[in-house]
Amino acid sequence: MRPVGILGGMGPEATILLMRKVLAAVAAQDDADHVPLIVHQNPAVPSRIAHLIERTGTDPTPVLRDMARTLEAAGAAALAMPCNTAHAYAGAIRGATTLPFLDMIEATADRLAEGGARRIGMLASPATRLATVFEAPFAARGLVPVFPEPDDAVLALIRAVKRGERPETLAPALAHIAEGLLTEADTLCVACTELSLVVPSLPELPLTDSLDVLVGEIVGFARA
Amino acid sequence: MRPVGILGGMGPEATILLMRKVLAAVAAQDDADHVPLIVHQNPAVPSRIAHLIERTGTDPTPVLRDMARTLEAAGAAALAMPCNTAHAYAGAIRGATTLPFLDMIEATADRLAEGGARRIGMLASPATRLATVFEAPFAARGLVPVFPEPDDAVLALIRAVKRGERPETLAPALAHIAEGLLTEADTLCVACTELSLVVPSLPELPLTDSLDVLVGEIVGFARA
Repeated sequence: MRPVGILGGMGPEATILLMRKVLAAVAAQDDADHVPLIVHQNPAVPSRIAHLIERTGTDPTPVLRDMARTLEAAGAAALAMPCNTAHAYAGAIRGATTLPFLDMIEATADRLAEGGARRIGMLASPATRLATVFEAPFAARGLVPVFPEPDDAVLALIRAVKRGERPETLAPALAHIAEGLLTEADTLCVACTELSLVVPSLPELPLTDSLDVLVGEIVGFARA
Repeated sequence: MRPVGILGGMGPEATILLMRKVLAAVAAQDDADHVPLIVHQNPAVPSRIAHLIERTGTDPTPVLRDMARTLEAAGAAALAMPCNTAHAYAGAIRGATTLPFLDMIEATADRLAEGGARRIGMLASPATRLATVFEAPFAARGLVPVFPEPDDAVLALIRAVKRGERPETLAPALAHIAEGLLTEADTLCVACTELSLVVPSLPELPLTDSLDVLVGEIVGFARA
């Protein structure tokens, strides 16, 4: 199988969740059946929120490009990044190496379009909205993103996950936001890897988790 | 903080557990407070059990040396390996790069000696016993390892973890082995990263988990 390089640490819990989902996606009898990953768990990527929303922080582009080159040097055959907002820098990452980049946003837009929904309720960081990472991929497929308004409650939940609060204590607040979105949207898209940690504690809802879509891309690439 | 390179995938669940324990060891307010890791989650390391016990398998040494070089190329400042048995190859790994190797076995022997116990009940793979990885470090500190006899029940538990069986279903069998060891030993050492996955489901027992000791070494090195 071909190893996939993971630009990780955004946040570190979400990177570990991706690795757990990749393991769970494989029916393994022994170690050797699993997908090889090279994971740069780098918590020192400058804050995407500080750079994209608050407009005060350091640009994370140079660090992300270095991580891509590092993963290439370590033998990765493709790159993936379990952070929706950081896909604002996907172009720069693609340009840093010759490796294919398994784009979580494009793949998620494909999955949603295949499902037949048109109006997509976005459980996403305000940074993802402001960075407009889903805008062009959605428009190209006739999808319309519907964001929570206001979205400070979502940001508070994301920050609580990063602080280490237990996902099950955060689920009621996320479910409330999700139900609000479903009054205007056909389905939901979980488009924040911190919120993916809370999904198992949510009630049954129609949703596509971009992290699960990325897991499918990684396993598919590794095995191809 | 200095990034630590992880020779992982032996098995993949244990590598993820190490990463979770490193996260949990840090009181973080945001991503940037965490320890940087570069993790080679390589499930294709030839079986240590097949090579060391069954004497039929490929020698994993070249793959482990390559992984060490790969992690050095990716910017690791030290190496660590969350697999007790694979420490049979620690010498070859040390020789592959100029990086310090955070030796789980030496650090665990130090911790046990500090605790004042002398006879150590080993919850370990038969491969760890046959590879005698603990023998010299224990002897140097006046410690005596006590292994379960016979140890095929331990090997069956390890293989069940690798197959993905739920740790809580395996805990009663491991507790039975542990209690048997404590009739002859002062304390227990969990010296198999697969068995570390079962520890949270065990009843209260006097034990030192080598994986926890390695986590302490990693966090200490990263922050120094």
